Amino acid sequence: MTPFEDLLRQFEARFSRRHFPETPATLYDPAQYILGIGGKRIRPVLCLMGNELFDAIRPDAFEMATAIELFHNFTLIHDDIMDKAPLRRGHATVHAKWGENSALLAGDVMLTMAYEYLNKIDLSYTRRIMSLFNRTVLEVSEGQQLDMDYEQRSDVTLEEYLHMITLKTSVLLACSLKTGAIIGGSSQGNSEHLYQFGKNLGIAFQIQDDYLDAFGDPAKFGKQVGGDIMAGKKTFLMLHTLKTCTPAQASELQHWMTVPGRDRVEGVLSIMRACGADGWAADLKQHYTGLAMQNLEDVAVLSGRKEALRRLAGDLLQRDH
Amino acid sequence: MTPFEDLLRQFEARFSRRHFPETPATLYDPAQYILGIGGKRIRPVLCLMGNELFDAIRPDAFEMATAIELFHNFTLIHDDIMDKAPLRRGHATVHAKWGENSALLAGDVMLTMAYEYLNKIDLSYTRRIMSLFNRTVLEVSEGQQLDMDYEQRSDVTLEEYLHMITLKTSVLLACSLKTGAIIGGSSQGNSEHLYQFGKNLGIAFQIQDDYLDAFGDPAKFGKQVGGDIMAGKKTFLMLHTLKTCTPAQASELQHWMTVPGRDRVEGVLSIMRACGADGWAADLKQHYTGLAMQNLEDVAVLSGRKEALRRLAGDLLQRDH
Repeated sequence: MTPFEDLLRQFEARFSRRHFPETPATLYDPAQYILGIGGKRIRPVLCLMGNELFDAIRPDAFEMATAIELFHNFTLIHDDIMDKAPLRRGHATVHAKWGENSALLAGDVMLTMAYEYLNKIDLSYTRRIMSLFNRTVLEVSEGQQLDMDYEQRSDVTLEEYLHMITLKTSVLLACSLKTGAIIGGSSQGNSEHLYQFGKNLGIAFQIQDDYLDAFGDPAKFGKQVGGDIMAGKKTFLMLHTLKTCTPAQASELQHWMTVPGRDRVEGVLSIMRACGADGWAADLKQHYTGLAMQNLEDVAVLSGRKEALRRLAGDLLQRDH
Repeated sequence: MTPFEDLLRQFEARFSRRHFPETPATLYDPAQYILGIGGKRIRPVLCLMGNELFDAIRPDAFEMATAIELFHNFTLIHDDIMDKAPLRRGHATVHAKWGENSALLAGDVMLTMAYEYLNKIDLSYTRRIMSLFNRTVLEVSEGQQLDMDYEQRSDVTLEEYLHMITLKTSVLLACSLKTGAIIGGSSQGNSEHLYQFGKNLGIAFQIQDDYLDAFGDPAKFGKQVGGDIMAGKKTFLMLHTLKTCTPAQASELQHWMTVPGRDRVEGVLSIMRACGADGWAADLKQHYTGLAMQNLEDVAVLSGRKEALRRLAGDLLQRDH
């Protein structure tokens, strides 16, 4: 099995080129731009890994991986418009650079180009690939809508947050793996185990993300912790704290959320700790990590073939930065 | 051949239902809403007519027609955001009712659902259908981008405007007809004639649209004429006038464009008439109508099979309202 770095190199060798016509540049340059400002390319590599579980990597898997990465960047462009985000990967966002209208259209042509790559894949896979891909686009959109809806509500439950996170981030990891598997000739059972692996991996990763934003080591984390707290986000930690705190802690929490600056972060963190949110989140991450690894073990191929995926999951879930 | 009204009824019987999941309603209700506020359904009916030219209408043609109509509504939602339009077909636009973010996502899921209908079509047509459909989505996006670009420029040429209009409105009519033809088993030559027919029909229709907005009979037109002049739009008429007017007329025109209200319309119209823009536009419309009808005659099927398309083209291009 090919390790992550090698697959990444193989993918980039094909992906690092212009995917759009030259003109009108006002439409296609913004679309091409976001593809050139980096990105970890985890999703397309997951697709290639899902494919290689079953056989040597097929050319169609690269078409699929390209479609996945284009779709991912489509969501970034449109999400950044909605979130009014000025920066992405340290660069100006598309709408910050070209305006919201051009960014909207750049996203639209990005999604369309993803479908153009799907149209290159062997027709024997078309029905299943298109069906899963379409469902995933809808689900990711649902996740983004729910995320916006939840910002307006104060009674979001943990279950709702989990559902939203699953849609917004996990199903695309799952889709990447499963489409790769389908193109690799996988049985339905195996491709479904891989789908669940991706889903649980994504959930564990998001829990870790929420955890590190609050309790990470600033030196290793690379940025100041407490960003979510400053933004008033409902994270796994916050929802657990709200659910388990005493009335006294609840009003203390409410007080801290009105305080500006680092004091707020320290105040909120102390209540989160008092409510055991840190330990609870670590356990929850372990729970989903365990589910994911079991899903991977359930895939009926030689254990050695899964080593690259096992290692990638380990790397993703042990990061402390 | 089945006349427009009957095909419209057949299409509506299948199309008038919910195309989206029930939840989250905040995402899918806005998408469903625009499908329920009317629309002439010309494009899906063109698709059915293109199909029936060659044989009895196939069930796949209805899937295709549905995809086309969903795509058309996707462009309406996103265009209305970009144009900041408050009304569409006499109803509040999606973004006016639910906000720009929800409208953006509603458009995204609308486009995705169009692809889901394409995924129902017989696989023997998939490559050609998807390829043409994707190209059309890109071209319509290019047209919208060019339209926005041209608003910022004072040196737009007639050729550029024609190109923009072709992309923004004509290619979808052409795509509707050609995809219907492909599914009807048409030869490449015939389906290409139909494509050109749709393209020229669309251009003629747009010239007529520009003409009626300026010179239409207000009683028949149903709204006050001069909307384009009030909005300062570069129409066929305006571009011709700018190109052919004397320096004195040019400065007169510039003066009128600063005058508010009906006086501006009357002033500009008098210069357009003096430059012969009305007669020129009528001739230009006739030119493209002639091309379109020739394209239709070139389709090698019995003349009687083309009667419904001939009549629809006639109806579209003789309207004075």
